[in-house]
Amino acid sequence: MVHPYRVAILGATGAVGTELLELLEQRDFPLADLKLLASARSAGRTLTFKGEQLPLEAVNDDSFKQIDLVLASAGASVSKAWAAKAVAAGAVVIDNSSAFRLNPTVPLVVPEVNPQAAAAHQGIIANPNCTTILMAVAIYPLHQVQPIRRIVAATYQSASGAGARAMEEVKTQTQAILQGQEPVAELFPYPLAFNLFPHNSPLNGEGYCEEEMKMVNETRKIFGAPNLRVTATCVRVPVLRAHSEAINLEFDQPFDVAQARAILSQAPGVKLVEDWEANYFPMPIDASGKDEVLVGRIRQDLSHAAGLELWLCGDQIRKGAALNAVQIAELLVQQNLVRPAIALAN
Amino acid sequence: MVHPYRVAILGATGAVGTELLELLEQRDFPLADLKLLASARSAGRTLTFKGEQLPLEAVNDDSFKQIDLVLASAGASVSKAWAAKAVAAGAVVIDNSSAFRLNPTVPLVVPEVNPQAAAAHQGIIANPNCTTILMAVAIYPLHQVQPIRRIVAATYQSASGAGARAMEEVKTQTQAILQGQEPVAELFPYPLAFNLFPHNSPLNGEGYCEEEMKMVNETRKIFGAPNLRVTATCVRVPVLRAHSEAINLEFDQPFDVAQARAILSQAPGVKLVEDWEANYFPMPIDASGKDEVLVGRIRQDLSHAAGLELWLCGDQIRKGAALNAVQIAELLVQQNLVRPAIALAN
Repeated sequence: MVHPYRVAILGATGAVGTELLELLEQRDFPLADLKLLASARSAGRTLTFKGEQLPLEAVNDDSFKQIDLVLASAGASVSKAWAAKAVAAGAVVIDNSSAFRLNPTVPLVVPEVNPQAAAAHQGIIANPNCTTILMAVAIYPLHQVQPIRRIVAATYQSASGAGARAMEEVKTQTQAILQGQEPVAELFPYPLAFNLFPHNSPLNGEGYCEEEMKMVNETRKIFGAPNLRVTATCVRVPVLRAHSEAINLEFDQPFDVAQARAILSQAPGVKLVEDWEANYFPMPIDASGKDEVLVGRIRQDLSHAAGLELWLCGDQIRKGAALNAVQIAELLVQQNLVRPAIALAN
Repeated sequence: MVHPYRVAILGATGAVGTELLELLEQRDFPLADLKLLASARSAGRTLTFKGEQLPLEAVNDDSFKQIDLVLASAGASVSKAWAAKAVAAGAVVIDNSSAFRLNPTVPLVVPEVNPQAAAAHQGIIANPNCTTILMAVAIYPLHQVQPIRRIVAATYQSASGAGARAMEEVKTQTQAILQGQEPVAELFPYPLAFNLFPHNSPLNGEGYCEEEMKMVNETRKIFGAPNLRVTATCVRVPVLRAHSEAINLEFDQPFDVAQARAILSQAPGVKLVEDWEANYFPMPIDASGKDEVLVGRIRQDLSHAAGLELWLCGDQIRKGAALNAVQIAELLVQQNLVRPAIALAN
């Protein structure tokens, strides 16, 4: 039997925070208490949870007393500022930011892929980046049968990956264009309405942006495959919600397409969406609000005897962020891992 | 000295036809006469050319008498119905449809890539598919220096690739969504506004759609490289005009990135668009209405020692269709190839 936990959401007002709240309710997470933490600006407001109004509190040094589990989704700088304090206060932090993902002492977990990694946590468990989670769920079942040697990915990332305000910005820009006016870009560097551009995260010296390097490095860590060859081109597109990815996979030996399809039709967290007669495959509007990663167009790569091509869409706020975090929390509960090992050792 | 030619545009009212008219005017093509052919439905209307109103005529058996050059852009079935008649009447046909592209007796020409192929024409020269033209212009200069062994492409294709009405459909759908209504899909099988989907051309038994197979087969023919390994995932995105492509290239030996950049900065038909400081690269809104294919984000592939990644945007109505056709016409004029070889031989 699981006993209920005292949970805090850090960043409760954001796109992911809102979804966390909804998921804890929907999935009936065993809660003793739920504390909503946000910036000082939001303090005093309330959010609805199971029909009750819960107050938003400004995060402070006392916020994590009597808290077992923190779901953090307020960005890397907030996580860096507060995660260690939460752990010191005895909580386990499931962090949705990039702050700790590549830290060797922090497990980076996709429950369908590497649930076993969670056991080694020392107080913090990192939730991977959205594009990485969606890809990992879709391709790990194949990797288990025959190791993937190389991944060439191209992404089609929706506006909401940059937050709820970004989604509004695209709508406003779109309205302006339809009325013959100039679109105004504020959050994004360039207009996204009826346009697209390479992902605008900072570029490294090799010409890859941060978003692409997350796909490279996080996938390696989650798969426990430090030499996995990965390249990606990440692109922002004028879609409101749900990311899409065109994935080219290389193996050492040919991977039978029918077998790949059979594997993915049974894979946890995956929904095979392929109607070849109707030319119907995963689309962002169908993936929005769904838990599963929609996968389709699985085909033998014409350019490589041991290659497969596939196409996926997934809700990056849900499975790409909030759902994955809640699944990690559920995993910790099931395995009685909520008390951080390091805190017990101290 | 070039003497003027009697030119007919078959399909003058379409998106490409309109652009052909504009380009013939802008580029001051040596015209003795310009005849505008369309369906019976459009006959009687007029279009403006160099300030004059030219009548639209319904195409018929007498349409190609006294015509030297036909620019056909009314689709494959119209081309199949009329191209042979035009050639029999003594004209050379530059055909923008897919009807003859893979016919071994028909040259498939991108003037920046294989202008020499035009000389062998027997009355018909085919204009490649838009995605193929844009990619060919961008990567052939590299292929000349070191042969490309494999291409993995993912496309981001705008609505106007499906015609002017498709562009209007996306706008109407977008307006509906912004007003809280359901978008209606008529030309496209699914709503494209704030959505995207794999290119909806017919699928073959191997799971590739026609658009993807055009990139495979046409690139091989244009490059004269029948064994070139090509795979592609073609995707329709809610952009009004200009296509984008994420291209992964493999060579036998590493291709120095600085050298690739230097080559493409000088390449005909290419404009290098790379501001690494500002994170500014090719975008559809910048490519729209431009003659050049915008290329950027050239980088060493992290997953392959002999790989390069690049990103391109190009106006698929202009360089992807109408401009390439007019460039072929200019090439024929320059090389005195307007009279079809087969007609002379008869």
